[in-house]
Amino acid sequence: MVKVALIQQSCLEDKKSNIQKSFNLIKQAASYGAELVVLPELHCSQYFCHKEDTNYFDLAEPIPGPTSQVFSDLAKALKIVLVISLFEKRTAGLYHNTALILDKDGSIAGKYRKMHIPDDPAYYEKFYFTPGDLGFKPIETSVGKLGLLICWDQWFPESARLMALQGAQMLIYPTAIGLTPEDTPEEQNKQKEAWIISQRAHAIANALPVLSVNRIGQEQNNGQIFWGNSFIAGPQGEILQMASTDKEEIIMQEIDFSKTDEIRRIWPFLRDRRIEAYSGLIQRFID
Amino acid sequence: MVKVALIQQSCLEDKKSNIQKSFNLIKQAASYGAELVVLPELHCSQYFCHKEDTNYFDLAEPIPGPTSQVFSDLAKALKIVLVISLFEKRTAGLYHNTALILDKDGSIAGKYRKMHIPDDPAYYEKFYFTPGDLGFKPIETSVGKLGLLICWDQWFPESARLMALQGAQMLIYPTAIGLTPEDTPEEQNKQKEAWIISQRAHAIANALPVLSVNRIGQEQNNGQIFWGNSFIAGPQGEILQMASTDKEEIIMQEIDFSKTDEIRRIWPFLRDRRIEAYSGLIQRFID
Repeated sequence: MVKVALIQQSCLEDKKSNIQKSFNLIKQAASYGAELVVLPELHCSQYFCHKEDTNYFDLAEPIPGPTSQVFSDLAKALKIVLVISLFEKRTAGLYHNTALILDKDGSIAGKYRKMHIPDDPAYYEKFYFTPGDLGFKPIETSVGKLGLLICWDQWFPESARLMALQGAQMLIYPTAIGLTPEDTPEEQNKQKEAWIISQRAHAIANALPVLSVNRIGQEQNNGQIFWGNSFIAGPQGEILQMASTDKEEIIMQEIDFSKTDEIRRIWPFLRDRRIEAYSGLIQRFID
Repeated sequence: MVKVALIQQSCLEDKKSNIQKSFNLIKQAASYGAELVVLPELHCSQYFCHKEDTNYFDLAEPIPGPTSQVFSDLAKALKIVLVISLFEKRTAGLYHNTALILDKDGSIAGKYRKMHIPDDPAYYEKFYFTPGDLGFKPIETSVGKLGLLICWDQWFPESARLMALQGAQMLIYPTAIGLTPEDTPEEQNKQKEAWIISQRAHAIANALPVLSVNRIGQEQNNGQIFWGNSFIAGPQGEILQMASTDKEEIIMQEIDFSKTDEIRRIWPFLRDRRIEAYSGLIQRFID
């Protein structure tokens, strides 16, 4: 059993005030008894990928680095496991979109470099981030083996499955996704619903709980409106908690990892995978 | 553009009356302008896999065989594409759960032998069906390239993806799934919702329309109650039509295949798959 908290927040331009805001929310979650706290994607700044601008590389930091250190210190002080998301500078000209798990003793339990990188209008991530080279590997922590992924990975059943096949006990998606103001309300709603369904389906296919943490608010004039709706799903894809579309808030849930074992007895999908017929999955297209 | 019809029906014990019932419904669908008509899984009999009984092998037939022939004749007479689902006898002691697509001229456009075979209380399919050996291959028809799968395949993102990677324009799932009367209403609902979400997610991940056709009714005392809810989803996973839980009915929808191209421009998941990091998908478990 682990008590998790998702921090759904808006982001400010200034890094310091941003980190201060996250700190306050994390402390609040810890005071409610959270043992695992998750922040949204790239929570130390506004979402800079809305345009391609070389100045934004200034926001990046090495890992470990000053920002990972202040969060490590906080995790240690509060004795919580903390999932943070940073713009990683690996060397000059080499950057990643990286999430970290900081354990209760402040150590870095592991990191994940975003593997699937999007690029579409207002999400110009291929300009900033080299696709991750650490693969899909769950991270061992003091609260369990965690399948940490990031945002765009949400759309790929492959990444969720690979985590499950390596014994992940939970899937975690820090996220920054929003609606396009010019779209019709119908289209906006379709997109948000698809985002939720896609992740609930990873829970179902793998009988794993899913934590998805999004930001809220509009950061640029006419820019995307981050749609919140952070949620916690159980291992049958059932929604356990869901946040609002537009409010800063913490959602919490006690997660029972033993449910996975129970659900896989009635839905033994891992038993029946036809792996000898799956080789096409590692092709780009079968033409 | 293709006008599709899903035949949600209950099944009778007697094969002849069963086929007659399907005939009536298919004719009705054709009279409404359906060009592609889909029947539920194993629609020629009641669902015999509720127990293991060697007598039930009598229900099986070769393909082509008398039953495939009567449906072929009907497809030809009505000039429709027809998806049927048969208990296939390949030779003595070798049986499959097989779906066929009959084209407008009555020819067999192709067949699919169920690859993922379930086996759990009241669904003893591993006793009856050898897992398919034809792989996951879309079938070329006069209304498009169709990714025909069957029931339990619904839970596996792998099969949907393999169809998409081979150019399928639509996913089709003839199904026989129901709720267990002893389960709590909450559990029953969770299972039905999971079943719907799992398939809507295949639509989303692959930007393909999905047709899912289930049967209705209770066939055995205290046996499962087939939950209907046949549905048609668009390529963003949006529900276009959904049938009731307990009524025999036809649901219809005009499907525009060009939407897939449009959706894959805004959600280009095929562009970003990290195939070089997916080799674990063809392992049973990574331990």
